[in-house]
Amino acid sequence: MPRFALKIEYDGRPFAGWQAQADQPSVQGAVEAALAKLDPGFAAGARIAAAGRTDAGVHATAQVAHADLARPWDPFRLAEALNFHLKPAPVSVLAAALAPDDFHARFSATERRYLFRLQARRAPATHDRGLVWQVLNPLNTDAMRKAAAHLVGLHDFTTFRSSICQSASPVKTLDDIAIEETAIPHGREYRFRLRARSFLHNQVRSIVGTLERVGAGSWSPDRVAAALAARDRAECGPVCPPHGLYLCGVGYPQDPFGG
Amino acid sequence: MPRFALKIEYDGRPFAGWQAQADQPSVQGAVEAALAKLDPGFAAGARIAAAGRTDAGVHATAQVAHADLARPWDPFRLAEALNFHLKPAPVSVLAAALAPDDFHARFSATERRYLFRLQARRAPATHDRGLVWQVLNPLNTDAMRKAAAHLVGLHDFTTFRSSICQSASPVKTLDDIAIEETAIPHGREYRFRLRARSFLHNQVRSIVGTLERVGAGSWSPDRVAAALAARDRAECGPVCPPHGLYLCGVGYPQDPFGG
Repeated sequence: MPRFALKIEYDGRPFAGWQAQADQPSVQGAVEAALAKLDPGFAAGARIAAAGRTDAGVHATAQVAHADLARPWDPFRLAEALNFHLKPAPVSVLAAALAPDDFHARFSATERRYLFRLQARRAPATHDRGLVWQVLNPLNTDAMRKAAAHLVGLHDFTTFRSSICQSASPVKTLDDIAIEETAIPHGREYRFRLRARSFLHNQVRSIVGTLERVGAGSWSPDRVAAALAARDRAECGPVCPPHGLYLCGVGYPQDPFGG
Repeated sequence: MPRFALKIEYDGRPFAGWQAQADQPSVQGAVEAALAKLDPGFAAGARIAAAGRTDAGVHATAQVAHADLARPWDPFRLAEALNFHLKPAPVSVLAAALAPDDFHARFSATERRYLFRLQARRAPATHDRGLVWQVLNPLNTDAMRKAAAHLVGLHDFTTFRSSICQSASPVKTLDDIAIEETAIPHGREYRFRLRARSFLHNQVRSIVGTLERVGAGSWSPDRVAAALAARDRAECGPVCPPHGLYLCGVGYPQDPFGG
């Protein structure tokens, strides 16, 4: 059975998360329902695996999943057919590609990239509602960058890890945190870009929620270093809401999409 | 009674347009309902006037309206109070300002600026659904710019005017059409920025719909010049859908917001 890699974009707002759950709308469920219209294996209950199992309300611009199909689809036609059957769910297959039999969307991945969008302004978001986390007052970007620098590298991230995280170890290498600040009408937008081989559960939201406290002046950058060193979940800042978070890239030793 | 100018951002998706209509949700109705919570005149049915009466599905990032209120509000507190009462409608007051008694949001305006967002890609929009017009194939931006150049200046825009337009004259000066092209994941976005003292009904959508035909190669740039010269509605290209259109600025001889 040929294995296909799918690059998937979705709006997380209507979903209980990536992972299929009984009686709850999931992105995985939407994609599998579309596959079931095309393929007997999925009609009989086959499943897909994804690089990142995003939480409820979290978005993706480039999630990657793989699926084993009964017949050798032309990748372009497969993407078109899936997009036809995905309507009206806000889930789109951006690209499909034939992948090696040993390609695994999750276990072959060597890098995940996340974006977090945070907006500071008084007036509530309109077009971006549910697509950004909003705070009222502008933040100090330099202070957030100083704090973020303490987190880059190989660390025990116990402080920045959900208590229900199932990862075998809290030790991870965070390759980069870049923070961009741009003007929006009557406010500012801060874009946090994080890159690592893999992340712990709620790690990005724990980090961004903590950095926001630094940007607001409630925490010093050094307090973030101390919180990390404490290896104590109680030392984390507030975990920020999911709806500014986007899985925006997955890296593989050999990119199945040829990028 | 002090007169206040309001700068208003809204998501047009849930509304039948700016203008209040019986039994239909309107942006004007939402703002007036919020004002009615604060002011006895609006509780008794006073109305607001706006610079541009946008159609159903059309958005704004900087609509301007004016309202006469019974008491001298602090402008910041007025904006905050209106935003509180506007919830959960996707309508936000970005700024409020005390305006001269002879300021009129519509009749004092000397410039309107519109943005139209058009995306070309195969996969359906997810986060931007209802916020852009989508076509499947990339467009020729140089050809669209050549065609647009024929439309800039003082012309009889009968060809690019809705048959129900109530403007006294079809003769208008279109000050500028700028077209920006940017990359989006697996596609292209084209942003059309149009600027004029005032526009005819459906003028922007008639122009963008026609320019798209040029970008797709179905029309030559010269055909747009011929269509304009014909002064015949039947010579217009297809009017494009409303949901990529944004009223994004209104100019006044003296900006009430001090910008």
